[in-house]
Amino acid sequence: MSVVQRFTLGDVLSEHRRGRPLETAVVDGDVRLTWPELDDRVNRLAHALAADGVGPGERVLWLGQNSFRVLELLLAANRLGAVFCPANWRQSADELAYVLNDLTPKVVVWEESEAVEKARGQVTLDARWVKSPEEYESYLSDDATEPAGAAEVLSGTPALALYTAAFDGRPNAALLSSTALIAHSMSLLHIRQMENGFTFLACGPLFHVGTVMFTLATFQIGGKLVFTPAYEPKEVCRLIDAEKCTQAFLFGPMIDGLVEANKEGDHDLSSLRFVSHSPEWDAMITVDDSPWCASKMGGYGQTEVGGMLTFLGLGMGGAGYAGRPSPLVHVRMLGPSGEEVAAGEVGEICARGASLFSGYFNRPELNEAKIAGGWHHTGDLGRREADGTITFIGPKLRMIKSANENIYPAEVERAVKAHAAVADAAVIGVPDDRFGQSPKAIVVLKDGQTATAEDIIEHVRGEIASYKKPRDVEFVDAIPKKGYTPDYDALDEQYGGGAYPGA
Amino acid sequence: MSVVQRFTLGDVLSEHRRGRPLETAVVDGDVRLTWPELDDRVNRLAHALAADGVGPGERVLWLGQNSFRVLELLLAANRLGAVFCPANWRQSADELAYVLNDLTPKVVVWEESEAVEKARGQVTLDARWVKSPEEYESYLSDDATEPAGAAEVLSGTPALALYTAAFDGRPNAALLSSTALIAHSMSLLHIRQMENGFTFLACGPLFHVGTVMFTLATFQIGGKLVFTPAYEPKEVCRLIDAEKCTQAFLFGPMIDGLVEANKEGDHDLSSLRFVSHSPEWDAMITVDDSPWCASKMGGYGQTEVGGMLTFLGLGMGGAGYAGRPSPLVHVRMLGPSGEEVAAGEVGEICARGASLFSGYFNRPELNEAKIAGGWHHTGDLGRREADGTITFIGPKLRMIKSANENIYPAEVERAVKAHAAVADAAVIGVPDDRFGQSPKAIVVLKDGQTATAEDIIEHVRGEIASYKKPRDVEFVDAIPKKGYTPDYDALDEQYGGGAYPGA
Repeated sequence: MSVVQRFTLGDVLSEHRRGRPLETAVVDGDVRLTWPELDDRVNRLAHALAADGVGPGERVLWLGQNSFRVLELLLAANRLGAVFCPANWRQSADELAYVLNDLTPKVVVWEESEAVEKARGQVTLDARWVKSPEEYESYLSDDATEPAGAAEVLSGTPALALYTAAFDGRPNAALLSSTALIAHSMSLLHIRQMENGFTFLACGPLFHVGTVMFTLATFQIGGKLVFTPAYEPKEVCRLIDAEKCTQAFLFGPMIDGLVEANKEGDHDLSSLRFVSHSPEWDAMITVDDSPWCASKMGGYGQTEVGGMLTFLGLGMGGAGYAGRPSPLVHVRMLGPSGEEVAAGEVGEICARGASLFSGYFNRPELNEAKIAGGWHHTGDLGRREADGTITFIGPKLRMIKSANENIYPAEVERAVKAHAAVADAAVIGVPDDRFGQSPKAIVVLKDGQTATAEDIIEHVRGEIASYKKPRDVEFVDAIPKKGYTPDYDALDEQYGGGAYPGA
Repeated sequence: MSVVQRFTLGDVLSEHRRGRPLETAVVDGDVRLTWPELDDRVNRLAHALAADGVGPGERVLWLGQNSFRVLELLLAANRLGAVFCPANWRQSADELAYVLNDLTPKVVVWEESEAVEKARGQVTLDARWVKSPEEYESYLSDDATEPAGAAEVLSGTPALALYTAAFDGRPNAALLSSTALIAHSMSLLHIRQMENGFTFLACGPLFHVGTVMFTLATFQIGGKLVFTPAYEPKEVCRLIDAEKCTQAFLFGPMIDGLVEANKEGDHDLSSLRFVSHSPEWDAMITVDDSPWCASKMGGYGQTEVGGMLTFLGLGMGGAGYAGRPSPLVHVRMLGPSGEEVAAGEVGEICARGASLFSGYFNRPELNEAKIAGGWHHTGDLGRREADGTITFIGPKLRMIKSANENIYPAEVERAVKAHAAVADAAVIGVPDDRFGQSPKAIVVLKDGQTATAEDIIEHVRGEIASYKKPRDVEFVDAIPKKGYTPDYDALDEQYGGGAYPGA
């Protein structure tokens, strides 16, 4: 690759300063910046960061609410070949201390918070701490006529780190390069039919890929970005009206909140072209018919693929409700030995493509495991249907091996839960003299409903391959959980699980 | 870059065989192929090519009309890391012999043609010649259960060669990688709002980037590709109707041909979502409102940038009728020493970005010159307007240097031609004792119109900077031409041109 193929986030900004000299790039409270103003500030910030030792591969951390400064820090760090991380500032002091020690940033820009101050006291870190907003403006370098950094930064250099994937209870920072972020933006421009003049209200958390991905796609086409510290229904309605926002980060309960906040019709929300939700909502906004909105934002994704890996909008009407892969990725369903499983069979969702991450920061062993055989292993299970569309099954937490057949608990759980009388279910593997292991279902029935073990087993036999059906069913009052998923260790202990392959 | 970021044209095909197993990929006469059928054939073809010595960096040449075999050859060559070239089969035997000697392909697939047979006799080439269609089917390998090539081909490996840019009278083969072609496709998916189910009729020449770019964008999203040997109005109408084509390669005179061919309304062309052209045409088709069609396909492009560098659809209503750059490129207007010129000033259109070519095949010196200073030099002149949109001025054929100011003849010519009485004009530089050189306009007046040299000079002074105005005007009956551009050498000789900088 020659330098003429280079195209980084910093280059996108360089283009917009020339291509959109009169247009507003950023709105945040009283702050309004045109593209040249944003570029000048990013350059001044890059000079300041460089003076604090931020160079290629170094990290810059943001600990605060949403702010246009998140975008400035990302772009300034990228101009220097450094990595920017907007971390979840709502975490506990212990969790924040973990992030600080793990990422070892050279510069931390932080907002007033008890947890952040406590975490700061817990770590010994050679970092410059800049308090926002108080010290931020004076932190920007005054003298910055020459571009900072620039020339040597390649498109594949990691630009953004997002903490995710707490496999062993502690999160890992997924590194995303300009190439990956720009590729993902292109897939959103396509599926959401984002046009010139697109205005995005970043009212979801900027430490989450869901908000980040639309922020960056809007940036990519030189649209207007409106930042607000956090989701506050009245303020979100006001901003949509005042800035004529085309889209915002919203889903179900957030939408209901806006309908309630705007029930007197105080604000005109018709500039918003968004997903149909309820008659009241649909009457307030303009229902959008792009494949993204028509499919109600359906698909499958994770931070490690830049956001979305598949879009329902590319497979509407198909058998699999996750649709088809983005035009920039290739998906295969792989079995435990890395072999591709046939259509209709469940395997791990694996991927290659332009939007994929560059591994986790400082996790060489984990990174090697995640790309075994040259494919990124998502850690999630899926299935190609006969028409080629994809169904997401669930997380691949563990595998049961029965008579040499691989059985994923998530697949069996889906089948059990499809029984009308079942409220919740988990599946474990129990030792079996004949088959090595066999699946056992732990089931919670709905109030007032009844079902026998035979009923459940027969039902599952009708849903998936017979060898995957539970050989035993135990009815319980509640399934112990770890966050949103069953606590399998507790279930194993309580209901006799064991003999897992590889364990 | 890790292998998980890899995404080649061959990978796109691998994805579609899984994601669209039941859908039609290709239609050409009696040939209809689903995606798995196409993938199988491409694999068999790759095995055959490999057996003939086609490996990484080797070339495969197509000399014939449009055919689905062009797509098969491109994909099979890409699977092997080789370069595929669909050359202009309408060229003379001498021109074809030049291409054969220049590209030195290992395999030539050709169709019956006097010129091709004559050219073959003129060259000594160690190549396998496969006559299409007669020998093509039997050329495909029978036994191809294992994938050919594959694993080692990277996204940046050149995949396609298109002859263009005859700077010194002989064309050069621009090399485009999977990265560049896929990036360009993404910009078309965006600007044309191409959706699932898009069907493209390739009725323009497949050796030209204009047809290639929509063929590949359709391929990128797994749409249906309809091939026809060449533009034949009746047959094009029949195919649009029969295959429910969404788009075809068409412009002005081709569209008029379809209106005439379908004046009895024999065919239903309403599936075509295309550019508005004439009342008759608009009544036959569905006028499309995507930014691409609404802007009447406006923009600026060349083969070396993968097709389009700028799109009018990204700057509608702006001052520059070439619009703004594609979301995947960065454009700068550079002066002769590589310095950026200010908005409003004319410079050479230079670019960086993901869709850019990998240089010309076997032209190391030219390639070095084209990327001087890390920017691809298009060889064309342009201007950033005050609103950031871009105006294309004309080819940068030569430069006049007057009192140390750079004057591009194309810019002055545009200003002269804007005079109401002027039918045609060319500008040359003549030696000037005081300024070194000064511009002289050679002007053809419209029939029955009059204007003095003073009129012309005054008019130009009102259009562009005064120092660029001609100091002398000569009225003539016709401007000698070389193809579409003035024959400047002849003009210099006839009207006293000379003292060019660097000459």
